[in-house]
Amino acid sequence: MANIETFPNPKRERPYLITHINAEFTSVCPKTGLPDFATVTVKYVPDELCLELKSLKYYFLEFRSKGIFYEDVTNVILDDLVEACKPLEMEVITEWGVRGGISSIIQAGYVKSENS
Amino acid sequence: MANIETFPNPKRERPYLITHINAEFTSVCPKTGLPDFATVTVKYVPDELCLELKSLKYYFLEFRSKGIFYEDVTNVILDDLVEACKPLEMEVITEWGVRGGISSIIQAGYVKSENS
Amino acid sequence: MANIETFPNPKRERPYLITHINAEFTSVCPKTGLPDFATVTVKYVPDELCLELKSLKYYFLEFRSKGIFYEDVTNVILDDLVEACKPLEMEVITEWGVRGGISSIIQAGYVKSENS
Amino acid sequence: MANIETFPNPKRERPYLITHINAEFTSVCPKTGLPDFATVTVKYVPDELCLELKSLKYYFLEFRSKGIFYEDVTNVILDDLVEACKPLEMEVITEWGVRGGISSIIQAGYVKSENS
Amino acid sequence: MANIETFPNPKRERPYLITHINAEFTSVCPKTGLPDFATVTVKYVPDELCLELKSLKYYFLEFRSKGIFYEDVTNVILDDLVEACKPLEMEVITEWGVRGGISSIIQAGYVKSENS
Amino acid sequence: MANIETFPNPKRERPYLITHINAEFTSVCPKTGLPDFATVTVKYVPDELCLELKSLKYYFLEFRSKGIFYEDVTNVILDDLVEACKPLEMEVITEWGVRGGISSIIQAGYVKSENS
Amino acid sequence: MANIETFPNPKRERPYLITHINAEFTSVCPKTGLPDFATVTVKYVPDELCLELKSLKYYFLEFRSKGIFYEDVTNVILDDLVEACKPLEMEVITEWGVRGGISSIIQAGYVKSENS
Amino acid sequence: MANIETFPNPKRERPYLITHINAEFTSVCPKTGLPDFATVTVKYVPDELCLELKSLKYYFLEFRSKGIFYEDVTNVILDDLVEACKPLEMEVITEWGVRGGISSIIQAGYVKSENS
Amino acid sequence: MANIETFPNPKRERPYLITHINAEFTSVCPKTGLPDFATVTVKYVPDELCLELKSLKYYFLEFRSKGIFYEDVTNVILDDLVEACKPLEMEVITEWGVRGGISSIIQAGYVKSENS
Amino acid sequence: MANIETFPNPKRERPYLITHINAEFTSVCPKTGLPDFATVTVKYVPDELCLELKSLKYYFLEFRSKGIFYEDVTNVILDDLVEACKPLEMEVITEWGVRGGISSIIQAGYVKSENS
Repeated sequence: MANIETFPNPKRERPYLITHINAEFTSVCPKTGLPDFATVTVKYVPDELCLELKSLKYYFLEFRSKGIFYEDVTNVILDDLVEACKPLEMEVITEWGVRGGISSIIQAGYVKSENS
Repeated sequence: MANIETFPNPKRERPYLITHINAEFTSVCPKTGLPDFATVTVKYVPDELCLELKSLKYYFLEFRSKGIFYEDVTNVILDDLVEACKPLEMEVITEWGVRGGISSIIQAGYVKSENS
Repeated sequence: MANIETFPNPKRERPYLITHINAEFTSVCPKTGLPDFATVTVKYVPDELCLELKSLKYYFLEFRSKGIFYEDVTNVILDDLVEACKPLEMEVITEWGVRGGISSIIQAGYVKSENS
Repeated sequence: MANIETFPNPKRERPYLITHINAEFTSVCPKTGLPDFATVTVKYVPDELCLELKSLKYYFLEFRSKGIFYEDVTNVILDDLVEACKPLEMEVITEWGVRGGISSIIQAGYVKSENS
Repeated sequence: MANIETFPNPKRERPYLITHINAEFTSVCPKTGLPDFATVTVKYVPDELCLELKSLKYYFLEFRSKGIFYEDVTNVILDDLVEACKPLEMEVITEWGVRGGISSIIQAGYVKSENS
Repeated sequence: MANIETFPNPKRERPYLITHINAEFTSVCPKTGLPDFATVTVKYVPDELCLELKSLKYYFLEFRSKGIFYEDVTNVILDDLVEACKPLEMEVITEWGVRGGISSIIQAGYVKSENS
Repeated sequence: MANIETFPNPKRERPYLITHINAEFTSVCPKTGLPDFATVTVKYVPDELCLELKSLKYYFLEFRSKGIFYEDVTNVILDDLVEACKPLEMEVITEWGVRGGISSIIQAGYVKSENS
Repeated sequence: MANIETFPNPKRERPYLITHINAEFTSVCPKTGLPDFATVTVKYVPDELCLELKSLKYYFLEFRSKGIFYEDVTNVILDDLVEACKPLEMEVITEWGVRGGISSIIQAGYVKSENS
Repeated sequence: MANIETFPNPKRERPYLITHINAEFTSVCPKTGLPDFATVTVKYVPDELCLELKSLKYYFLEFRSKGIFYEDVTNVILDDLVEACKPLEMEVITEWGVRGGISSIIQAGYVKSENS
Repeated sequence: MANIETFPNPKRERPYLITHINAEFTSVCPKTGLPDFATVTVKYVPDELCLELKSLKYYFLEFRSKGIFYEDVTNVILDDLVEACKPLEMEVITEWGVRGGISSIIQAGYVKSENS
């Protein structure tokens, strides 16, 4: 997996919200082998670390030839980014193009537990 | 009724929200025999099972020649999909085209009871 | 007054929300005699009865030559529709075209009391 | 018919374009007796006379209880307004609300002939 | 085929443009048997006859279970409507929902020849 | 100050919400003497009295040549209208055009105290 | 009248198009004494002179308390600005807020004659 | 290269316009190796052959890992599709996402020469 | 740093919300030296002091040649404006243009503590 | 001045249209010293050379601290880009943010003369 770089949160004493929106995400359907297209939104409250934007871009690019379901992509991104920057809270939203007349949205969230 | 297929939830330990939007739903008005057109939105938090997208498409197609009222369609879809995937929560929203100068929206929801 | 027809709620055991939007409502200003134009939205949670769409259309048509103020129209519609279908909850919203550079919106609601 | 008032064109030596848009037009369907709703647009190049806005409003109000087809309304308005202000050119466009799933637009134009 | 009714053009001496837009058109893909959804726009300059709106609605409904390609639907509608009302000019535009990530638009036109 | 007229609330037994939106408000900047332009929104729950629309229009016109800051206008309108109709609740929102690359919005509210 | 300042066209050898849009124009209706609101658009191809933006703003401000009809405003602005900068071509468009349910647009143009 | 399939034009005697829009096109920048994203629009007037939609989808998929400049993609698609279906006219438009703060659009066209 | 001027809150006894939106903010990326562009929104409930709009504009201009990260800009603006006007509450939102296919939003807030 | 790089037109035998849109252009007003913001659109038909996108970005950045009027910017960009790539045709459009309530658009074009 691509190395997701981080940098020290410049204002750790104040909880605040960061949102990154990637309208050019693409992965591959594991059933048909055809590409899927999505807008991926990452929202998080940083703790000690912030996600570095350029390495985030390269991280998203790794899904370009990966066969993976919508539900799985969303949870994998959430797990990877939580592990990378250990935020106080994070939400990942993926909005997928029309397939068979149906468009889909998946939303998953994480909140740091008090004693972790 | 069409077989609504499911697949195992890839991340059961985390509650997350899945939304499917079908902008090409059509059924038949039982009074006039004329077709009705709607956008159907299904939002749910999966428990053990996720709805398979292709079988969901075929399930919606079965309403194409069925005579059924707006309020009924909405509750029938909710009942069928709850039975198929037994989610933690589900909401179904149907938005109908203009009839007699009036457009309509029906929203119905389900929450799994603790002791079910 | 027009007869507002109803039909039995097909899913009484589940509270759900029905919305009807009429973008072609018109009544008459009692001061100037000139027509007023509005979009009327009716949202309700049915109890035993649902509003029948065609009779609802004819009900709205009766205001076409009635001289009545914005605030009054909104409350009269709410009272009439509550009486017709005795819902668990209902909200009526009227959005009026520009008069003297000012557009107006009136919103009124009803909730069934426990012991009614 | 309502008296469509006019006033002298303040700049006769220069041809220029005037557009009036009425989003609150309503007439009656001669077949069903039900109201029709339209946005009416009048575009014209004045010659000696301009249409007075208030009398134009009252002229449009006269269609409120008139039973008349879309195609006819459009041509009648064009004929009446041409007669009232004798413009160099005029176009009337009527855009009608959805009926039976179909919305309609009618456009008719007039150009003054050289030797009239 | 449904009978497409017509009525006499109320203003034959003036060429003018009529547009009907049906946002609820559906036919069936002859290859997959799955439904296709389109917005169909008909624009024409009437000669002696105008298209009657209600019969036009029923004409469109006949495609609901017909297996037919996009290009063919468009030309068939144009041919049928030209035959029904013999207009001076007509254009038919069909705009189709997304299939395989691709949406499509087909436009075909007719102009009455001088010596026909 | 203009006389803000009122009329008796037609439905005092039910709290409901009235919104008036004036997109053509203008006052004068006290520093530069140049005009400011705003959309003013008034939302209130009437008690015994409703604001009469025409006198409200004339009330707003009085600001046309008044030198007054954004924050002040908003609170003055709120105070004047509360005094005029003594509502259960009221909110005034002013949205101002771009000045020095910056657009501004001011929102102020009032709730009737129990023992007033 | 305000002095409309100009500055030398920096590129006289090439005809090019300049557009200024003022969304905050207001004048007074000569019949009712009430304010009218418009968006004014000025498009021109400069010859030797360009309109200076700040003096243009002050020129527009002079209409703030002037009683004048829509058609007249448009032609007066065109005449004044043509006189001020003597362009190769100019067009003035005024778009007015809703009055009596009707919104209006006036467009007037000027082209320098060869032998002027 | 993928086989671009065609089928016989169902209405050869009438020239008409077909438009296909692919909002999910992606290729690779030959300089940076990073993916580019575009909406590709193909408009053509068929002669003897129409482009088959499914094979068109697969043809577009082949660019997914191809390193190629915007200008080149557009002309290659035009050349390939002209060769495949030999249309009377064709236009290809590619609209590219933001790179370095700049978005780009490339448009190229073809018209069959009389004696080809 | 620019002097952020303030003026006395004209209505201290009532908490109300002020929003300023600057769509023309630009700073410099400290990594690449290239400019970043953002819309900056400041929302606050004033206590004794309001922010003066012109000095706020000049304060924002100081970032034009400053190398600073998104997260830092947002927190620095919040700290500076809180220090300048000591509000009851304040929120700063920065929305940044697309970089590497990703757009970003940063939101930070402040609430006056009871005993400060 | 920055070096505007070019690359050989990959399809010289066919005239086609290239459009680049920069929504993040900023220069400085020579009168006030304050920044101006614009969207700059460059449209051209290449001859032997195409504009390289990255060097175009750096070219636009040079205006960031340059004091220059709207009309001049537009013509200077046109002159520089024509000189760099010697196109068959080119158009430059600059759309500027609101100043004194007025927004502005400047459009200038170039066509290669036959004997140049």
